[in-house]
Amino acid sequence: MPQPELLETFDNPYPGREYVIQMTSTEFTSLCPLGGVESDAAELDLLKGGAPDFGTIQIEYVPAERCIELKSLKLYLWSFRNDGIFYERAVNRILDDLVRVLTPSRLSVTGDFNVRGGIKSVITATHRAVSATR
Amino acid sequence: MPQPELLETFDNPYPGREYVIQMTSTEFTSLCPLGGVESDAAELDLLKGGAPDFGTIQIEYVPAERCIELKSLKLYLWSFRNDGIFYERAVNRILDDLVRVLTPSRLSVTGDFNVRGGIKSVITATHRAVSATR
Amino acid sequence: MPQPELLETFDNPYPGREYVIQMTSTEFTSLCPLGGVESDAAELDLLKGGAPDFGTIQIEYVPAERCIELKSLKLYLWSFRNDGIFYERAVNRILDDLVRVLTPSRLSVTGDFNVRGGIKSVITATHRAVSATR
Amino acid sequence: MPQPELLETFDNPYPGREYVIQMTSTEFTSLCPLGGVESDAAELDLLKGGAPDFGTIQIEYVPAERCIELKSLKLYLWSFRNDGIFYERAVNRILDDLVRVLTPSRLSVTGDFNVRGGIKSVITATHRAVSATR
Amino acid sequence: MPQPELLETFDNPYPGREYVIQMTSTEFTSLCPLGGVESDAAELDLLKGGAPDFGTIQIEYVPAERCIELKSLKLYLWSFRNDGIFYERAVNRILDDLVRVLTPSRLSVTGDFNVRGGIKSVITATHRAVSATR
Amino acid sequence: MPQPELLETFDNPYPGREYVIQMTSTEFTSLCPLGGVESDAAELDLLKGGAPDFGTIQIEYVPAERCIELKSLKLYLWSFRNDGIFYERAVNRILDDLVRVLTPSRLSVTGDFNVRGGIKSVITATHRAVSATR
Amino acid sequence: MPQPELLETFDNPYPGREYVIQMTSTEFTSLCPLGGVESDAAELDLLKGGAPDFGTIQIEYVPAERCIELKSLKLYLWSFRNDGIFYERAVNRILDDLVRVLTPSRLSVTGDFNVRGGIKSVITATHRAVSATR
Amino acid sequence: MPQPELLETFDNPYPGREYVIQMTSTEFTSLCPLGGVESDAAELDLLKGGAPDFGTIQIEYVPAERCIELKSLKLYLWSFRNDGIFYERAVNRILDDLVRVLTPSRLSVTGDFNVRGGIKSVITATHRAVSATR
Amino acid sequence: MPQPELLETFDNPYPGREYVIQMTSTEFTSLCPLGGVESDAAELDLLKGGAPDFGTIQIEYVPAERCIELKSLKLYLWSFRNDGIFYERAVNRILDDLVRVLTPSRLSVTGDFNVRGGIKSVITATHRAVSATR
Amino acid sequence: MPQPELLETFDNPYPGREYVIQMTSTEFTSLCPLGGVESDAAELDLLKGGAPDFGTIQIEYVPAERCIELKSLKLYLWSFRNDGIFYERAVNRILDDLVRVLTPSRLSVTGDFNVRGGIKSVITATHRAVSATR
Repeated sequence: MPQPELLETFDNPYPGREYVIQMTSTEFTSLCPLGGVESDAAELDLLKGGAPDFGTIQIEYVPAERCIELKSLKLYLWSFRNDGIFYERAVNRILDDLVRVLTPSRLSVTGDFNVRGGIKSVITATHRAVSATR
Repeated sequence: MPQPELLETFDNPYPGREYVIQMTSTEFTSLCPLGGVESDAAELDLLKGGAPDFGTIQIEYVPAERCIELKSLKLYLWSFRNDGIFYERAVNRILDDLVRVLTPSRLSVTGDFNVRGGIKSVITATHRAVSATR
Repeated sequence: MPQPELLETFDNPYPGREYVIQMTSTEFTSLCPLGGVESDAAELDLLKGGAPDFGTIQIEYVPAERCIELKSLKLYLWSFRNDGIFYERAVNRILDDLVRVLTPSRLSVTGDFNVRGGIKSVITATHRAVSATR
Repeated sequence: MPQPELLETFDNPYPGREYVIQMTSTEFTSLCPLGGVESDAAELDLLKGGAPDFGTIQIEYVPAERCIELKSLKLYLWSFRNDGIFYERAVNRILDDLVRVLTPSRLSVTGDFNVRGGIKSVITATHRAVSATR
Repeated sequence: MPQPELLETFDNPYPGREYVIQMTSTEFTSLCPLGGVESDAAELDLLKGGAPDFGTIQIEYVPAERCIELKSLKLYLWSFRNDGIFYERAVNRILDDLVRVLTPSRLSVTGDFNVRGGIKSVITATHRAVSATR
Repeated sequence: MPQPELLETFDNPYPGREYVIQMTSTEFTSLCPLGGVESDAAELDLLKGGAPDFGTIQIEYVPAERCIELKSLKLYLWSFRNDGIFYERAVNRILDDLVRVLTPSRLSVTGDFNVRGGIKSVITATHRAVSATR
Repeated sequence: MPQPELLETFDNPYPGREYVIQMTSTEFTSLCPLGGVESDAAELDLLKGGAPDFGTIQIEYVPAERCIELKSLKLYLWSFRNDGIFYERAVNRILDDLVRVLTPSRLSVTGDFNVRGGIKSVITATHRAVSATR
Repeated sequence: MPQPELLETFDNPYPGREYVIQMTSTEFTSLCPLGGVESDAAELDLLKGGAPDFGTIQIEYVPAERCIELKSLKLYLWSFRNDGIFYERAVNRILDDLVRVLTPSRLSVTGDFNVRGGIKSVITATHRAVSATR
Repeated sequence: MPQPELLETFDNPYPGREYVIQMTSTEFTSLCPLGGVESDAAELDLLKGGAPDFGTIQIEYVPAERCIELKSLKLYLWSFRNDGIFYERAVNRILDDLVRVLTPSRLSVTGDFNVRGGIKSVITATHRAVSATR
Repeated sequence: MPQPELLETFDNPYPGREYVIQMTSTEFTSLCPLGGVESDAAELDLLKGGAPDFGTIQIEYVPAERCIELKSLKLYLWSFRNDGIFYERAVNRILDDLVRVLTPSRLSVTGDFNVRGGIKSVITATHRAVSATR
């Protein structure tokens, strides 16, 4: 199950300047929900289905007070490995978890998932702080 | 013949957030209209013409209340396989069928078809909800 | 010599919707004007010059009432094969001929010509209907 | 069902010289055998399965007395469109059908099929005339 | 843990002809052995290490009496997902398991693993039947 | 019609050394034989057919006493422009014409022709001098 | 030394239409200023320094009354070959010379220079006519 | 430790024109802070950690009165080689150092760093002069 | 200075089978010998020269009794970071150090170094055990 | 004019091992012989012809006693800059000059020259020492 408590942050070393940080993991994997039912404690059951999904997660943000710690982000993304979750929820969940710990000026998450049934899916969700000028 | 009744949808898990979903099938195929006449029940007749067409269909939308179910989209696109249809109509038809079941904030369909007669064709049609801010 | 009378059109099947059609031929060829003089009836004379030119022609338009018929466009582009014509004129001529038969909302022609004298040329011309909103 | 009777040949214009001809179609499509049972008269039944397969067929041969006629090869490959057939059989069948009409010095067929279940398949079969020196 | 009992085979439809089958999965994943100790029942433990590995597995073989069934190969490769195993063992293990069920004329396995510690690893192992001419 | 009399040669400046010269033109064009009948004086007749063919010609040779003059090769290849000729004959004809004027140790010609009817063709023919060691 | 007197122009054949011409030479070469001193009559002196520089020059403009003649542009760019000049000056000088002979609506020059000291440089300068709308 | 005193500038040869200079080094390297503590005098200690980082630094600016001297920029970037520094600080530090010596109209620095822990990082920071129109 | 004592090995898990292991680091860096003199204790002195070199090191071997441990290889390659060494020596030195700890059946090292003075260098050295069959 | 006296060599540091060194310059330039006459003291005369040629020179050799010094090779290749020379002679000349100073086990030179008259040329010449085993 996704473990947002793994996420760690550190003080933005240049808080007065608007700059952009982009982080990309090409090794995201989770499980397809078993029987179409999402589950926080899913397991890969080779006889029942629950096929693995693979994709690339790209995160882009403008930090405010905090920056995300690289290694903790890696561990957090690993925590989806044995979780049964739909693409739409995974992308929006990552967005929510990161916004909660970073309170960034702007943050977007893109999930670019491998072909399934001959169809490729790319999903992008964006958060903007209420006071963000752009 | 195209079978829009195959399309299934599910509740958008994040209805309050504007986010973008892109789905791409590189395996679209239909038939060239026989003698230039489109037909809902065309068949490949190797002696009369009715040559196969191939292309990539890309769908991009901002969901409102509903999301398209991936497997049902695959089946719907397969249903063009033995249909005689012009490129212009295929792209606009897919747009209409998806808008009807999704009522999305925005939805566009691009058909990128293989070279015929030394000429490549790409057709893009877009729908925007009347109230969509962008 | 270019033969615009070869161009054929058909009724736009979705006249009420603004959509974009892009057609690309990578097999355009004409002749370099002999002695710098353009000619509607030029011929390749290997001893006098009149070297062949090669390029890609890309046409992009938003149809109004009519769409261009694919095969007739192919024949029209073939009709430049033994014609001595400058790049600038070829691109603008194709634009004029297509605008005349289509009366489109918008139409642009790009000629991307192979290297000559170590220099590559790309020329783009655009027509917009007076009443076109964009 | 595959129709080898569509294949036509013509006299090799340079029968005394060993040379190589390679022909590639990127638009091969057939159906996955329904319930794992191959069928000469299969049809795409969207509710029962029988999913479409797509791939590239590459043929390379050294002609003896006859060459394959390009258009007839195209029609022959189209004839697999609504046929339920395994990859292994399709490649070997095309090899057999071509060898029968060409009696070539050497001929090989490669089928490069799109990803299914996250796995891509490439199958190559080769025929050599008994008297072929190489 | 790897489950070779998942592997299924079917009769080679062209047993008299030497031909080549290549199957490639770009979605192989396993775990790095925890504390350098391989384990058949490893689990991803985010706090202890046991980092995920990712790679591409390519299998190429000349069948004798049996061919590997595509879907069963997919399930077998999935069964490494939560297994702690070294690259060298994974590649040789897949080779051994496939040779056992196929008794092929020739079979090779290549594992092309993602960068770890700035270093990319590619490992190839090959089996040849004693009587194989080539 | 092809004009081999345009081909000019010059003395090989290093006749004692076996070295390789490769020349590639990506701008070869000829016509498809009208009604399947090849003709030395064919013309593009847009209403009757006689469609243009396009391709890349690659020549590779080990010179003996003579080298081909670059500009004369260009003119010779241009001379196929309005000629109705099959792919197989064009490649073998260029081989014959070059062998006649060069008497090389080895010479091969490859014609890599654009897709027609969804099928791409590549044809390679090779000449070796009787006394050539390799 | 750069010879702007080599530049020749011809009447824009479509003066009433705003269209874009892009010309690219991948074969620009000049010399690095000897001892950091630019010189109109520099020479490559292998013992003193004055290393060659290489790059791509891209010119894009919207013509007003005149167009640049392709061959004269080639000769003009050749005239930098033995000139010692800084990147910044070369790009701006070409811009000035072209604006003088063309009086265009808009013209930009980009110099994309090869790596020197492990660093790649790209410089872009733009001229806009005072009355240009865009 | 970074040595901004190595940076040298020269007079902008075209101070009255707004033009863009882009400089890219693909050979940037520094050290990962030892134990997460940045240090101006870090050293690579193979037994303690302090792993090397690698990346590409891209600088883009619109000069005002001064331009950066290419060779001095190279030396300045080399001075990070044995420095323990976080990505976020490195990019912002380079920005600050360049702005101080150039007082440019606009300047941005992008650091595109190699994958670490399966995650790639790209960081972009921008400075705009108070009076810059854009 | 290169530290071969960092190299660690482990027992080849499949010692009876000839298989191939390829390991590639794209992040090799060393220093150019200062004043052309190689030194085991060189340092980057920005004012005196001693420029950094960058390249890719590819190692391919057939193990006998031992395999190289991935992390120790990484540390060993890092140990060239502040060493002044010629390309030819670096590649042969890595070969010697690895052969000493692995006693492999076959081992080759390729160093693919970045452009210096407009020239790219690639150096490959190979060791074969006296008894190696191939 | 080519200046072979610029070539410098150094002692092969591993004379007992057969290894391969490959050096590639993508910045070779010379002049086309004026009026077809080669000249050791040619100059670029923009009004008379003598057009610049560009290409890539690749040198691959197995050293015996001596290795080529990188910087001296760069200067030697620069010395062709204002020389009027045919492709065939340039490649063979570089081969001769390098063989003279290196007496290598094996050495080959490939010149890959830019398109002229729509035709690309690649020329490869090889020298093998009489006693070279391979």
